[in-house]
Amino acid sequence: MAMKQNDKLNLTMLCDFYELTMGNGYFNCGYKDRITYFDVFFRKTPDAGGFAVVAGLDQIIDYILDLHYSEEDIAYLRGRNLFTEEFLDYLRTFRFTGDIWAVPEGTPVFPNEPLITVRAPAIEAQMIETYILLELNHQSLIATKANRICRAAQGRTVLEFGSRRAQGTDAAITGARASFLGGCAGTACTIADQMYGVKAGGTMAHSWVQMFDTEYEAFKTYCEIYPTNATLLVDTYNSLKSGVPNAIRAFNEVLRPKGIKSCGIRFDSGDMAWLTKAARQMLDEAGWTECKITCSNALDERLISDLIGQGAKIDVFGVGERLITARSESVFGGVYKLAAVEDAEGNIIPKIKISENTAKITNPGFKKVYRIYGAEGKCFADYICMHDEVVNGEPLELFDPEAIWKHQTVTDYTAKELLQPIFRAGELVYKRPTLPEIKAYCAEQIDTLWDEVKRFDNPHNYYVDLSPELWRVKNELLMRGGQPAKERAQ
Amino acid sequence: MAMKQNDKLNLTMLCDFYELTMGNGYFNCGYKDRITYFDVFFRKTPDAGGFAVVAGLDQIIDYILDLHYSEEDIAYLRGRNLFTEEFLDYLRTFRFTGDIWAVPEGTPVFPNEPLITVRAPAIEAQMIETYILLELNHQSLIATKANRICRAAQGRTVLEFGSRRAQGTDAAITGARASFLGGCAGTACTIADQMYGVKAGGTMAHSWVQMFDTEYEAFKTYCEIYPTNATLLVDTYNSLKSGVPNAIRAFNEVLRPKGIKSCGIRFDSGDMAWLTKAARQMLDEAGWTECKITCSNALDERLISDLIGQGAKIDVFGVGERLITARSESVFGGVYKLAAVEDAEGNIIPKIKISENTAKITNPGFKKVYRIYGAEGKCFADYICMHDEVVNGEPLELFDPEAIWKHQTVTDYTAKELLQPIFRAGELVYKRPTLPEIKAYCAEQIDTLWDEVKRFDNPHNYYVDLSPELWRVKNELLMRGGQPAKERAQ
Repeated sequence: MAMKQNDKLNLTMLCDFYELTMGNGYFNCGYKDRITYFDVFFRKTPDAGGFAVVAGLDQIIDYILDLHYSEEDIAYLRGRNLFTEEFLDYLRTFRFTGDIWAVPEGTPVFPNEPLITVRAPAIEAQMIETYILLELNHQSLIATKANRICRAAQGRTVLEFGSRRAQGTDAAITGARASFLGGCAGTACTIADQMYGVKAGGTMAHSWVQMFDTEYEAFKTYCEIYPTNATLLVDTYNSLKSGVPNAIRAFNEVLRPKGIKSCGIRFDSGDMAWLTKAARQMLDEAGWTECKITCSNALDERLISDLIGQGAKIDVFGVGERLITARSESVFGGVYKLAAVEDAEGNIIPKIKISENTAKITNPGFKKVYRIYGAEGKCFADYICMHDEVVNGEPLELFDPEAIWKHQTVTDYTAKELLQPIFRAGELVYKRPTLPEIKAYCAEQIDTLWDEVKRFDNPHNYYVDLSPELWRVKNELLMRGGQPAKERAQ
Repeated sequence: MAMKQNDKLNLTMLCDFYELTMGNGYFNCGYKDRITYFDVFFRKTPDAGGFAVVAGLDQIIDYILDLHYSEEDIAYLRGRNLFTEEFLDYLRTFRFTGDIWAVPEGTPVFPNEPLITVRAPAIEAQMIETYILLELNHQSLIATKANRICRAAQGRTVLEFGSRRAQGTDAAITGARASFLGGCAGTACTIADQMYGVKAGGTMAHSWVQMFDTEYEAFKTYCEIYPTNATLLVDTYNSLKSGVPNAIRAFNEVLRPKGIKSCGIRFDSGDMAWLTKAARQMLDEAGWTECKITCSNALDERLISDLIGQGAKIDVFGVGERLITARSESVFGGVYKLAAVEDAEGNIIPKIKISENTAKITNPGFKKVYRIYGAEGKCFADYICMHDEVVNGEPLELFDPEAIWKHQTVTDYTAKELLQPIFRAGELVYKRPTLPEIKAYCAEQIDTLWDEVKRFDNPHNYYVDLSPELWRVKNELLMRGGQPAKERAQ
């Protein structure tokens, strides 16, 4: 079954094999049409941050719309000798017929709240687990990291430069998308521009400089070819003794006669604080006050904060491997857990997954989430309740599910539902925003957070509270060890 | 230019934008046909390990064979208003016409030696930089990590379970490939089996157990449907009080009458050492001595070593996020550096990239690499020399390029060239091994390393030495600051 990497992939087959064994199992034990509810949520924010930025929904929508098994896929599955012919036949016309709710991309989100809820027949809901997690985990990881890095840059431009260190082709491409969504101004990744409109840019590598007989000649030639896009890489030989003087000479000789004032230099190695301060002075003294200084060398939010604190003269940060792989914490731990099933009469039966670790116990039932805003427009709590509860401005009692003695009643607030309908009975009902719209929405939403939540170190622990009704249902299930009443009787 | 993620991608466009601006620049300044030499190498082994396992060549070959710009790509590039029509026209018939040498996939490799050498006209060599690095960096990262994890498991089975936490779709798929190549026995990723023949397996998630009225019913039903593939997940409610007893009961009632002895249980949470010892005893006492115990819960080489040291009774390790993202160090730092150009007469002019950090200074020239084996068949040094030098068994002087006073003359050795011809004048000349062949070769090659190199902590620093001739050329370039003679005269 040799396929080339860039043949069209059927992402339906990008699933953990157990989704298929369970699917065939449900099919053959009569659970095929049983309606189930699954929640996607995460338990811990990467880098111990105060919030995460959720992303990946647009690709999940594409995936759901394209769900199918080809004859080749079915032939492969038949070859595994595990699946019944009836099940394989069922896969021939497989598509998603359920409902999906999701928190819109770009929203700041918090541990333990549903980011996506799926309501669908058991097999359908199970089959889509792996891809939904993969896409949401990856893009949320990168969007969250990009947002941290961009906040550290305090308004300076941040560009995503990581393709060469990305974990595979898709990591480079959707990684550039998620970086843009989270705050980056652009990318080095050409195809991300072509596919998603993430503005791609770039000028030269060291090889350009080395290719010419002299550094000056390399710079001059570049300025001649790209007079309005001349960012010269100045650290191939000696940044301050050779690179910056040669750049100034090329600007003087090629750009000045054309009246061009906008140009740039880039450092890719060395002590960025020292070098940029010295270079800024040299450029200013030569009249190139509008020349932008770009730095790129294993940067992240910590290094950028440090450089700014040291007075480095940097206009643009090019951020590579530490963004595109989220190196300081390369995993976003979203999980997909069964929350309820419907019985034959359509009653919703909540389900729970117990754990010795209290934080790992799931929230049962079909739920929704409200974000609660104070009078000043900042949000201060998220409130998870059962799907049929309504928060409408009446006094609301909030309490911490991990410390139930901490509670408060809030009155002067507004509430907004976070989960939006995406699919209804298999039909897409969501108006998909454009990537620039998502980026703008993300920035706007992050402005509704208190600064204390946005702090890098020891951020305020944002409240994610349960309604009394959800708390009651959860406790009831916990008290009987998670298993339905029937089991206890054995 | 909206494209769906799973439309066929043209990976030629997965390049840093500066490859294109440089390409257009070379085209328009007369360097289009200039022959250049680029080396791929890395400077530091992930996790401070003693060696890395190189991987990704097979996908790089696919990429090179498929290099092309479609009319849509050219239309996109024209829209950027940076490229001349002559250059865009040149891209219409663009293909790779040069030579590539590479170290075969699965070979243990060391810092600073060429893993791939490209000899091609400047534009071609430049355009392929990003993808070659991306693919080699990603797959080498994962193959190296997988090899560490498998060595820690000391012969026990290791399965790759990380798709849901992978950094994008390709990370899941080629990540499963690289994990297999590096030593894993299989994967959970179905499409990796379909595409690459990495055996995929899996049985059930917690949702299967929760879906039934009782845990016992869930187990019994599964055993009935899959009597020869029954690995039961026992930690949904209470592993030792409920999970293992219910599994034994299901095995007794369903498998025993059929005479089936092979089965399994899996733990996905809790104290693995304690739980597996207790479970092993319960299973053995019930006569299920052949029941295999699988564990999966944020494992890596450190945790696996610890568990084995504590006498945990684990037959199979399912390794997820810490393998598929190489969490402890998520970046493989391969770089692509200009090493030489040819002048009009075909003379090879070596090029160097200087750095204030000595370790970052490149090795100039067109080179080859010998691996030097002692009489006992173990390798003890790699020897980088100029392409026209020959190592043929004559006494060889080895010295450490970072400590030139450390040298030795070796006599009783054999030498093997590492870099193999892959492309000659644009034609594939390499017989591509199958993935199982690569996996077997990798295991065999790792057996040629001394145990001291394979140690996790403070491994022996394997010698990667330069020939006296290469050392002379490098020093000569260093002495004049890296720039050609012409620059010094200014």
